[in-house]
Amino acid sequence: MATETLRNEPPEYFAEVALSKAYRLLNHGPTVLVSAAHAGVSNVMAAAWAMPLDFSPPKVAVVIDKATATRALVEGAGGFVLNIPSKAIAAQVLGVGTDSAVSHPDKLARHGVTLFSPPGEALPLVHGCVGWLHCKLLPEPHNQQRYDLFLGEVIAAWADPRVFRDGHWEFASAPDSLRTLHYIAGGQFYVIGDSLKVDSGH
Amino acid sequence: MATETLRNEPPEYFAEVALSKAYRLLNHGPTVLVSAAHAGVSNVMAAAWAMPLDFSPPKVAVVIDKATATRALVEGAGGFVLNIPSKAIAAQVLGVGTDSAVSHPDKLARHGVTLFSPPGEALPLVHGCVGWLHCKLLPEPHNQQRYDLFLGEVIAAWADPRVFRDGHWEFASAPDSLRTLHYIAGGQFYVIGDSLKVDSGH
Repeated sequence: MATETLRNEPPEYFAEVALSKAYRLLNHGPTVLVSAAHAGVSNVMAAAWAMPLDFSPPKVAVVIDKATATRALVEGAGGFVLNIPSKAIAAQVLGVGTDSAVSHPDKLARHGVTLFSPPGEALPLVHGCVGWLHCKLLPEPHNQQRYDLFLGEVIAAWADPRVFRDGHWEFASAPDSLRTLHYIAGGQFYVIGDSLKVDSGH
Repeated sequence: MATETLRNEPPEYFAEVALSKAYRLLNHGPTVLVSAAHAGVSNVMAAAWAMPLDFSPPKVAVVIDKATATRALVEGAGGFVLNIPSKAIAAQVLGVGTDSAVSHPDKLARHGVTLFSPPGEALPLVHGCVGWLHCKLLPEPHNQQRYDLFLGEVIAAWADPRVFRDGHWEFASAPDSLRTLHYIAGGQFYVIGDSLKVDSGH
């Protein structure tokens, strides 16, 4: 866990994404980092189990296990951030996904994970990511208790404009290190590959 | 929709997957085809919004819109199949994701989508896919009505052993046409890319 003031400056490549296009950050199934901050404490966990749930207003679903320290922060803050990490920080993703802040209170520092906030806000966004979705928790106690399933409404989104702009991922023209990660198991990820445009024939 | 007897033979490359490894078919976030059969009628729809929900027993979550014809079949049958399509059938995925059987009752034939069953069963599995998860619906009327969110328990799973074996995707050693699809919007997919193995440092 970390007690940063969440006042660090955003990175150089950081631009707002229209809410109507926010689902596209998550549509291709990347592994995410879930972050939350409450009462002066911030934490970050990895989650391969996240997906869009609706277009308008944009909603998301994510699985947050009862054993995680992040879960209490999400519940306390009434919200969370889904950060979409890039290949550049794969080791950090595995690190914060393997260690828990319950047993390793210094886990963010230990894995070199640093946070920043959007201008004028205090949110725990993770450096080295290529997309960020700030979500308000949609409380569903039955889902949370029975399935560890958390639903949220996306109330703001941002992306690295080198790799996501005008509502589209542009992996081919961006540095390879900005490709999204898709976790399997045992430290193995797949990186997203080539674009394939299909004509619907209509 | 289709009225096949669901008695077609499985493809040459078709092997059972242990239930303990079934989540890995879905863990990297592929776009899926949801199929269901009830009272002699089968249908198939595309869904980018699907994810694992639990390891043991394995569970999944998938969003199935009220406008789809498949939804009534899922509710009638009390179950569904998540089929994981490959690059080879990207045009069919876009086709069944664009047309509805409500307006195009012949949509499967129109897009060349054909079904088969595992030996000794009558299930609507889609040819050209590389993974299949047979799920029993876990009825959650509030989620279904309010969020179009359907939960299921995986009761059987299969994969194409050329590309998934011993519980692991093996995209690098398989034909490129067997890579999974990750939909964005407007007929654009990304195909899954290269493996990236990270040492956790523990």
